[in-house]
Amino acid sequence: MKYYIGCDLGGTNLRAAIVDVDSGKVLNQLSIATLAREGHAAVMARMAGLFLQVIQETGLQRDAIGGIGIGVPGMLDLKKGETLFLPNLSGTWPHVPLVATISNLMDLPTAILNDARSITLGEWRFGAGKGLDTLAVFTLGTGIGGGLVVDGRLHQGSGGTAGELGHMTIDHNGPRCGCGNYGCLEVFASGPAIRVMGIKAVAQGLTTQIAELCENDLNRITPALIAKAAEAGDQIALGIFNQAGFYLGVAASSICSAVAPQRIILSGGVSRAGRLLLDPMTRTMRERTHIMDVDQVEIVLGELGDNAGAIGASVWASLQAPGRSA
Amino acid sequence: MKYYIGCDLGGTNLRAAIVDVDSGKVLNQLSIATLAREGHAAVMARMAGLFLQVIQETGLQRDAIGGIGIGVPGMLDLKKGETLFLPNLSGTWPHVPLVATISNLMDLPTAILNDARSITLGEWRFGAGKGLDTLAVFTLGTGIGGGLVVDGRLHQGSGGTAGELGHMTIDHNGPRCGCGNYGCLEVFASGPAIRVMGIKAVAQGLTTQIAELCENDLNRITPALIAKAAEAGDQIALGIFNQAGFYLGVAASSICSAVAPQRIILSGGVSRAGRLLLDPMTRTMRERTHIMDVDQVEIVLGELGDNAGAIGASVWASLQAPGRSA
Repeated sequence: MKYYIGCDLGGTNLRAAIVDVDSGKVLNQLSIATLAREGHAAVMARMAGLFLQVIQETGLQRDAIGGIGIGVPGMLDLKKGETLFLPNLSGTWPHVPLVATISNLMDLPTAILNDARSITLGEWRFGAGKGLDTLAVFTLGTGIGGGLVVDGRLHQGSGGTAGELGHMTIDHNGPRCGCGNYGCLEVFASGPAIRVMGIKAVAQGLTTQIAELCENDLNRITPALIAKAAEAGDQIALGIFNQAGFYLGVAASSICSAVAPQRIILSGGVSRAGRLLLDPMTRTMRERTHIMDVDQVEIVLGELGDNAGAIGASVWASLQAPGRSA
Repeated sequence: MKYYIGCDLGGTNLRAAIVDVDSGKVLNQLSIATLAREGHAAVMARMAGLFLQVIQETGLQRDAIGGIGIGVPGMLDLKKGETLFLPNLSGTWPHVPLVATISNLMDLPTAILNDARSITLGEWRFGAGKGLDTLAVFTLGTGIGGGLVVDGRLHQGSGGTAGELGHMTIDHNGPRCGCGNYGCLEVFASGPAIRVMGIKAVAQGLTTQIAELCENDLNRITPALIAKAAEAGDQIALGIFNQAGFYLGVAASSICSAVAPQRIILSGGVSRAGRLLLDPMTRTMRERTHIMDVDQVEIVLGELGDNAGAIGASVWASLQAPGRSA
């Protein structure tokens, strides 16, 4: 068995791929709207339909598929195979038996893990972290998630929550985070935080291309729009990414102290800003980290793009199969 | 082979123990002054003498000893077996071939590791972390060190620096740390930081038993003296430990987010303050951590006391021996 289904259950889109877990090759992939507002039963039925279609289009028989892995955006009960709290999905899915439901509908072994841990596993096996022992991944989007590979294993912790790097405190006096803590990295450097910096600049009447690009409609300001202004040399926009990169660098420095990774990987939509974030983040991490040889630690972009989560989830499914190992 | 020598190389004292690494039992132990000012050659010669004596007193033959492990306070080149930077030892020991020197002098396999990682290994094997998979240890003293056990292995990272929990940033705007970073936990909650809080209180003329206990000699103020005042109900002294415990709790919360340990252990001299630190630290960690089931994470004191480092170092030596494993 080398073909597994990997699924990325997102708040907006549901993505499924058939992956050759020996090579990381994606044989086929499909993406549909999640339509979470229809409720978890409908979403799970739609997932099963998507899985059948993604198999069918490859011409593979279902018994050639080793199993299904699903990357889920939130807190999980890994032992029971249930979702606990999915903040971005309507109803938040308390105690939804995702594993039992999908494995019954599909008659295939099914496994779940956190979506950011899934990206971590994907990038480690087949992407920017290939062959390394110890890695940290930051997933930058509406929130900041992450994952750790430690001594050649995906480290999940007993509840699957290990790797939530966006909720490390970088300012104990900082603003409240959606999680309830204060001064988390996520408060300072998530997509919405970057967006708010752009909105403030325009609202304060600063001379910046952000104002022109958004045609003075503050609702149009996104990290991508600010990045466009920064790429064109706009100093305000560059300053916003320097600031976000600084905060990310502070957190990266803490991770270097605690875990000493060989490489740090940025993934997720906001990481498309590329060097705008990588440069100040790397500079800050190196300026602030003196207890390890941090000159060797590179911060790089993920290589699997939007497929990282689905590929990682397929690898996770394969790791649950008897006779396969990490 | 089950008898190993564990050594704790401290800035003030040199401690050596013969340990049965199957049971953690200490057969014999000795402690002498390090006298670091005499230079590294003299210290290493004194170490070898101490090792010979600690063996001799047990009546064991030297060939009954499997090897020597040394916990070293600073940065190391684990591959070369050299010290790189020992800030608390005179001369800082750049590129001192500690492994080669001791193994030649003693004709026994010798291994080194950071002293806080050594404590971590000791507490994990035979102390407060026994039987757990994932642990974080904070060693509280003049500095704040630490260590991580992740998924059943002591995690050192490629340079042996992983676990430096005292250099995680808890305030990116905070004061400069001795390490060069800003706002490290160590700046806020180390022994000297606690001492400075006590000195300030007395210097400001606050009504506190700290003033009486130190007989108005600010030089006499130590964390132990402040703890004595706090134990007697002094509100200022209690406030100082609440503040230090708060900072430790913030860092513990970050470690919970990143690594999701099953238990957190406090070791080192300053941890003798016990509940004065444990209570505010636990309260803060639980108030601020919402992305994992932190009610299950206990913060406890180490159980091996001053022997933790030597016991851990003996275990480390045994792990290097062929045929023995973690």
